[in-house]
Amino acid sequence: MNATNFNQPLDSAVTPRFCEPATFNRLPLQKDFKGLDIGLVGVPFDLGATYRKGAALGPGKVREMSRLIRKINHATRINPYELCNVADVGDVPINPIDINASLNAIEAFYRDLHAAGVAPVSVGGDHTIPYPIFKAIVDPKNPIGLVHFDAHADTLDELCGTRVNHATTFRRGVEDGLVDPKRVVQIGLRGTRYGDDDISYSTDSGMRVIDMEEYEKLGRDKVIAEVHRVIGTGPTYVTFDIDGLDPVFAIGTGVPEPGGLSMRDSQVIIRSLVGKNLIGGDVCEVAPDLDVTDHTPLNAANLLFEILCVVSHSIAHRKGRLQA
Amino acid sequence: MNATNFNQPLDSAVTPRFCEPATFNRLPLQKDFKGLDIGLVGVPFDLGATYRKGAALGPGKVREMSRLIRKINHATRINPYELCNVADVGDVPINPIDINASLNAIEAFYRDLHAAGVAPVSVGGDHTIPYPIFKAIVDPKNPIGLVHFDAHADTLDELCGTRVNHATTFRRGVEDGLVDPKRVVQIGLRGTRYGDDDISYSTDSGMRVIDMEEYEKLGRDKVIAEVHRVIGTGPTYVTFDIDGLDPVFAIGTGVPEPGGLSMRDSQVIIRSLVGKNLIGGDVCEVAPDLDVTDHTPLNAANLLFEILCVVSHSIAHRKGRLQA
Amino acid sequence: MNATNFNQPLDSAVTPRFCEPATFNRLPLQKDFKGLDIGLVGVPFDLGATYRKGAALGPGKVREMSRLIRKINHATRINPYELCNVADVGDVPINPIDINASLNAIEAFYRDLHAAGVAPVSVGGDHTIPYPIFKAIVDPKNPIGLVHFDAHADTLDELCGTRVNHATTFRRGVEDGLVDPKRVVQIGLRGTRYGDDDISYSTDSGMRVIDMEEYEKLGRDKVIAEVHRVIGTGPTYVTFDIDGLDPVFAIGTGVPEPGGLSMRDSQVIIRSLVGKNLIGGDVCEVAPDLDVTDHTPLNAANLLFEILCVVSHSIAHRKGRLQA
Amino acid sequence: MNATNFNQPLDSAVTPRFCEPATFNRLPLQKDFKGLDIGLVGVPFDLGATYRKGAALGPGKVREMSRLIRKINHATRINPYELCNVADVGDVPINPIDINASLNAIEAFYRDLHAAGVAPVSVGGDHTIPYPIFKAIVDPKNPIGLVHFDAHADTLDELCGTRVNHATTFRRGVEDGLVDPKRVVQIGLRGTRYGDDDISYSTDSGMRVIDMEEYEKLGRDKVIAEVHRVIGTGPTYVTFDIDGLDPVFAIGTGVPEPGGLSMRDSQVIIRSLVGKNLIGGDVCEVAPDLDVTDHTPLNAANLLFEILCVVSHSIAHRKGRLQA
Amino acid sequence: MNATNFNQPLDSAVTPRFCEPATFNRLPLQKDFKGLDIGLVGVPFDLGATYRKGAALGPGKVREMSRLIRKINHATRINPYELCNVADVGDVPINPIDINASLNAIEAFYRDLHAAGVAPVSVGGDHTIPYPIFKAIVDPKNPIGLVHFDAHADTLDELCGTRVNHATTFRRGVEDGLVDPKRVVQIGLRGTRYGDDDISYSTDSGMRVIDMEEYEKLGRDKVIAEVHRVIGTGPTYVTFDIDGLDPVFAIGTGVPEPGGLSMRDSQVIIRSLVGKNLIGGDVCEVAPDLDVTDHTPLNAANLLFEILCVVSHSIAHRKGRLQA
Amino acid sequence: MNATNFNQPLDSAVTPRFCEPATFNRLPLQKDFKGLDIGLVGVPFDLGATYRKGAALGPGKVREMSRLIRKINHATRINPYELCNVADVGDVPINPIDINASLNAIEAFYRDLHAAGVAPVSVGGDHTIPYPIFKAIVDPKNPIGLVHFDAHADTLDELCGTRVNHATTFRRGVEDGLVDPKRVVQIGLRGTRYGDDDISYSTDSGMRVIDMEEYEKLGRDKVIAEVHRVIGTGPTYVTFDIDGLDPVFAIGTGVPEPGGLSMRDSQVIIRSLVGKNLIGGDVCEVAPDLDVTDHTPLNAANLLFEILCVVSHSIAHRKGRLQA
Repeated sequence: MNATNFNQPLDSAVTPRFCEPATFNRLPLQKDFKGLDIGLVGVPFDLGATYRKGAALGPGKVREMSRLIRKINHATRINPYELCNVADVGDVPINPIDINASLNAIEAFYRDLHAAGVAPVSVGGDHTIPYPIFKAIVDPKNPIGLVHFDAHADTLDELCGTRVNHATTFRRGVEDGLVDPKRVVQIGLRGTRYGDDDISYSTDSGMRVIDMEEYEKLGRDKVIAEVHRVIGTGPTYVTFDIDGLDPVFAIGTGVPEPGGLSMRDSQVIIRSLVGKNLIGGDVCEVAPDLDVTDHTPLNAANLLFEILCVVSHSIAHRKGRLQA
Repeated sequence: MNATNFNQPLDSAVTPRFCEPATFNRLPLQKDFKGLDIGLVGVPFDLGATYRKGAALGPGKVREMSRLIRKINHATRINPYELCNVADVGDVPINPIDINASLNAIEAFYRDLHAAGVAPVSVGGDHTIPYPIFKAIVDPKNPIGLVHFDAHADTLDELCGTRVNHATTFRRGVEDGLVDPKRVVQIGLRGTRYGDDDISYSTDSGMRVIDMEEYEKLGRDKVIAEVHRVIGTGPTYVTFDIDGLDPVFAIGTGVPEPGGLSMRDSQVIIRSLVGKNLIGGDVCEVAPDLDVTDHTPLNAANLLFEILCVVSHSIAHRKGRLQA
Repeated sequence: MNATNFNQPLDSAVTPRFCEPATFNRLPLQKDFKGLDIGLVGVPFDLGATYRKGAALGPGKVREMSRLIRKINHATRINPYELCNVADVGDVPINPIDINASLNAIEAFYRDLHAAGVAPVSVGGDHTIPYPIFKAIVDPKNPIGLVHFDAHADTLDELCGTRVNHATTFRRGVEDGLVDPKRVVQIGLRGTRYGDDDISYSTDSGMRVIDMEEYEKLGRDKVIAEVHRVIGTGPTYVTFDIDGLDPVFAIGTGVPEPGGLSMRDSQVIIRSLVGKNLIGGDVCEVAPDLDVTDHTPLNAANLLFEILCVVSHSIAHRKGRLQA
Repeated sequence: MNATNFNQPLDSAVTPRFCEPATFNRLPLQKDFKGLDIGLVGVPFDLGATYRKGAALGPGKVREMSRLIRKINHATRINPYELCNVADVGDVPINPIDINASLNAIEAFYRDLHAAGVAPVSVGGDHTIPYPIFKAIVDPKNPIGLVHFDAHADTLDELCGTRVNHATTFRRGVEDGLVDPKRVVQIGLRGTRYGDDDISYSTDSGMRVIDMEEYEKLGRDKVIAEVHRVIGTGPTYVTFDIDGLDPVFAIGTGVPEPGGLSMRDSQVIIRSLVGKNLIGGDVCEVAPDLDVTDHTPLNAANLLFEILCVVSHSIAHRKGRLQA
Repeated sequence: MNATNFNQPLDSAVTPRFCEPATFNRLPLQKDFKGLDIGLVGVPFDLGATYRKGAALGPGKVREMSRLIRKINHATRINPYELCNVADVGDVPINPIDINASLNAIEAFYRDLHAAGVAPVSVGGDHTIPYPIFKAIVDPKNPIGLVHFDAHADTLDELCGTRVNHATTFRRGVEDGLVDPKRVVQIGLRGTRYGDDDISYSTDSGMRVIDMEEYEKLGRDKVIAEVHRVIGTGPTYVTFDIDGLDPVFAIGTGVPEPGGLSMRDSQVIIRSLVGKNLIGGDVCEVAPDLDVTDHTPLNAANLLFEILCVVSHSIAHRKGRLQA
Repeated sequence: MNATNFNQPLDSAVTPRFCEPATFNRLPLQKDFKGLDIGLVGVPFDLGATYRKGAALGPGKVREMSRLIRKINHATRINPYELCNVADVGDVPINPIDINASLNAIEAFYRDLHAAGVAPVSVGGDHTIPYPIFKAIVDPKNPIGLVHFDAHADTLDELCGTRVNHATTFRRGVEDGLVDPKRVVQIGLRGTRYGDDDISYSTDSGMRVIDMEEYEKLGRDKVIAEVHRVIGTGPTYVTFDIDGLDPVFAIGTGVPEPGGLSMRDSQVIIRSLVGKNLIGGDVCEVAPDLDVTDHTPLNAANLLFEILCVVSHSIAHRKGRLQA
């Protein structure tokens, strides 16, 4: 298979945007992973959220808003559908009541995807989901780095007496040896805190925390340089909790925190990752029923595309498709 | 093929309602019409509307709300997926700017569907669309009857200098010999009028008009008897302009008129059509952006299912599947 | 002047509904009262409301939703623009802070209107406004009857230490000799109460109170007969607090009470007033910001038209225009 | 303590409705159960819901909308605050992630309440919550009857592999001997079904199922008679799944089903329970973020008050406070 | 006529903002163009939009939100009503179904306006409308320059097989010799693209394209300098597609693209045009039903005022009213 | 009493955010002022607003959104509940109709609070409320300085013929000798103006006005320096009209003006006040019904917390609690 056979989004000049069932980026829904480089996965899971659930509706709505996404990245000129074979591979069959069954289902789905050699770019679901994803696709012998956009560190030890939820994800990942904290950069942290040590695990374990105070002090260019320095050349995953954005961009999320990142800055930082060694990514915590204007899932759809662009470029590079 | 091979909706106990891209009633999207008895079609067309457009977004949103629809009709016990092979056959590729190109595309799509022996149950789109559908699927030698739910008669001669739009549909159908006015019943008419003769073509041509005044006077049971009397045993099509409902059930439509039908009454009337000779149907004029509560498309999804039930029963009868 | 010169609404086939600044029923805005029979008046006043204000925005939004209203009453066939010369005469220049200045401004505006021989059909504003209107247009020698739709009796003596507010209107009217309680019928009362005597002034003074319990017991036809009996042939005013409707029809109001009237019933009751001696009317308590679906002002615009129809018929009768 | 010392709602003439933190019916928040007859309890639990969660936000929003509720029932003239000492006793401290911990917390809270001799009237939360409530307050030697308003029977054996969720509640209650199926009446059932046997447990176990078809056929008066017949004089609990209402009254719920009960009918049926032997009740499945118009929690607040009225009357009767 | 006779907005201290039918900036509605310098025109046209229509409702809603606009520009101190005689001249009578009839109606309306010596400042309507406006008011011997705010270049050759739509406007203008591409500056371009050559006509024809990447690199001051350089002293028109703004400022538009201009930057750039040779302007693509918060039309109303200020200043200069 | 006895917010790990009636910051509701250092006060007053009322609903909704606020300031590390004893002291019992009675009630409430030695941090209510607050808590011998965030100067002499309303507050304060204009800084002014002299009283009286033009020119750091210079070491009050924010952060307010402050900048400026001599503060003009996304009250809740942090620090310093 070569690029001429890759899946293509529906052409809006032939099939207008309002036509046909919504899939991610108007790609074919392909439940058979064969031949794919990248699978766009929905993970409609919100059993790990502690306040307002609703992120289980995220994948459906992001698909809907991705009707607005075209093929080519305005800034980087990347066309992911020339570089990789991409499909909407559907949703993980979540159990809406049993959190453990759901976590197992997520892990199993990504194991299959990984076994088929397909890199995942996902839409959550709450921010618990990177943990089972990491368990499925990361070899502890080769832990990954993270570019982690978020208002919160998600490195608590437990919350409400549970150890796997949307506030503990990355601590669990480090403890399991799946995430190399030295290659993790957390961007956008802010918001009131439960305790002074809310983010101490992040810093103690060696993660590079760039909270909004430092973000502003450094400026975007230096932040990008720092991101590149931290993740280096090792395998890296991009995880975007939509609440990393200021609530003006993402009111439709469980725990919005004023004073956050802009879409523009987020787009530019993600675009800067062209050339990095990327293995996948996700956009999480989109709770569409909390935003009747559909602005939050619109931004999520755009971020999904940005992540897809840089991941597809990385994969094309690894597969030797970028020569000349 | 027999019922054991018919398409089935996704099982919500295995694949929860929030999972997977939204198709009509969670059925497979099947662009190849072969083997189907009924095709659920989206017609995202709103170029025939004269005030507030937005019905082009109807099919996408009704698909989304049909996540709530299960398999079996509570009242009639009909399971359409045991009676017929049904699929979401996707949307007509509308031209969003060129009304004539769009009308031609609709007609062509339904010609293909009809040629494949597939009966259509559709989601509009504005209420212009029955006209090109009739042109595609009705033989003037055998004109059809209509059960027509609406606040408006849609039998003007022209509006805004145009002759094919959402206010002239059924007049055109009669003039082309596709609709037998003697076998048409219009239910729910009401609302202020432009002129005293707004609905005169309906009555002059012999349609049975049951406006809300008469509806209330007769009561639902006698209305049903009258519907049965009018349509008789000939081929009949069910067309439901969502504005036939009172606006409390359907505020998300271009021209809502207070004082209309209830969902309950509409459900019961449609259910009464079991045993009639039905060839298809549609639900039109759902403009989801005018109803942030999603109530209108929820009702549309339920009406779509009601129409599917009676049409599937009719087809199963014609195909001899109902014995014993 | 005769009917051929009467103001006419913009013709939607020439000037589509979305065109031109919104006036009541798309009529000319005519600040000079000369030659008018009926003035449609906006009274953007909400200083008499005790919980959620916002009815000051009512006239603007009802104008907007009246884009949907055509010329002829579906049921009665009345075309008010053939019977009377009607205009949108604009809004009373309310003082948004000073309640007494506002009440005086209302009274003064209606005095001028009345002096010009123009009957008012108004859009509030909270339900305080009938009181200053009555003071302006009613001669205590000839007190009026009322057809009063409401969830509440509005006959308290005082509320929050004030005596002129939206809960005391009709008691003040009776005390001032402007309203004849024997010719008042209150329809739709219900809702929890502050005290057992909430509505005692109504009954004690001789008003005919038809609460929802009795409404249901009598049925609409007998209610209509009772309305006719109570108001008789004397001068009568129709006042419609939008919260008389069930909240499914009017969630955009300050004090919604479940279990109320339907639009259908309200329409039919108002239509029954053809032939009565009507001097004006109003629709009050529409607070559009409390209903993002615009359903409440849609219903208000329809009720305004219904009241206009019967008032115009009464005036035409009095002016001898109905012969032949 | 006598009635002169009972808790009273804030007086709106002194403390307007928009003043002070929202509690149920503007009652004192009283965490000490001593001296109370009835506790209004919030149960912010939605871990038993299978599609759209969000009912955990129900209690907070119903409190907010109960600012509109006054003291006296319009139809029955019951003033619950003269009959019983009532308080908002706060919310069960739900665990937002661990379903079993939450169910245990609910049971424990109601055990304490029950031990203090306080009858519960609750706001959910999804419709799983009656099960742990029954476990806490019902003696299997004296199983209770139910007046159960709902679109769904909630008597499945399991859903998604789990046995305690919002679709199995009343089967569990019967199996545990807490609910006497012969004294259960289910009102309002309708909606598409997963299987023909969705409600077979209800009928097989002897519950009296009045679906919407039968409801309409019988009419409200005969339904009321049937309710009275079924529950008899034994201890009875009123459980109201808000989706028993037609979605026009309750779009803010996880699984709305068109063609349901009206608020008016629901109010009248509940009011008919004056004189019955009532031990408590609840309103469940209010998911406020699904209804930006706040209509659903408004209705829930009104239903809560209706249930409070009849329960308070029953308790006052049992406590001998009704003589004279 | 001199400034003392110019139309003035209603005085909010006398006629509060919620009073009177909404016109642009609370100016008189004046259908007779005589004596006017500037006409504020509504163009309720959305037949050129390819995805979500709804901009036909723009003029009505912008009028409504312009209730918030006062008389004097905070930053420039321009009072347009001292400099020019301005009126709301109403809306072009669009045909809601026939695109060609509508385009002709637009052109005809502006020809009349132009013949009367009145400069237009307009509210769309989709972004097709500048083309018929240019045909009406521009002499090909003296083509105009443009300050064009937009997320998209609108210089495609065709879309969906049509050549006049909201994506081809400025190409058509250049081809007809009405627009001098060398004097066009396009600001704010961004968003995913259909093809690499989406904006090639802009650059090939000599337009100055400042996409968001360059905008950010240059900074606002240099962008302003570049705008001034490009448009020079020739006749220039300001066209503002509201989607040039970031979606946080304008979610109510058909094709929002994250990462765009701020209101602040847009205000400052427009204000910088004082002293330029301006002939008119427009704000387009406001689709109010897509933004229930009314934020988008609020911003449109403010941008309309900003454009009015600089155009009125330019006209006053040309008419010699600025001396002293 | 010492810090170990200070009131603490409910612990979200024990009592999740959705549990319990909403109070400011989940603090106890304590109507007895004894032992408190700071009272969080609701002032549900909107009788001083001139366009869209609705700010009376502000305190209730800000309480609701403050469920999201934790205990510790991310940037300053201040935990106000370690420094001061804080409670939600409830709402001023506003009269919803009588503006003077309400102003007197506000003044009386704060006199009591002040007499008890409790500093107020308040949530309005419209921006009239600082005036009666100042009358209650300021000794004219020791007038206060202000850090005043706003789009408008609020220093008109009168509006609509009234002298105490939300546009005259700070002029009245100066005239009464309660506010020292030399120690007032107004930040964020912008928006169209009624007249050239709208803000002349501000500048004439010696206030330091930093409008958005100057804000942008200076940059945030120099603005902060200027704020510190102006207020010096004297007693200072922080008053935040939510419309000081750009409407993207606060569309839910009566008079939004595009081009304003960001939450981030506002947070940083308030945080800079650590060490200043602060006596209280407020957040005003939150009209929640104008923002169905709840974004405005979310930001208000965050600003309330920011003000609480710096005020609590100042009080702790004055009370000698900061040593070591």
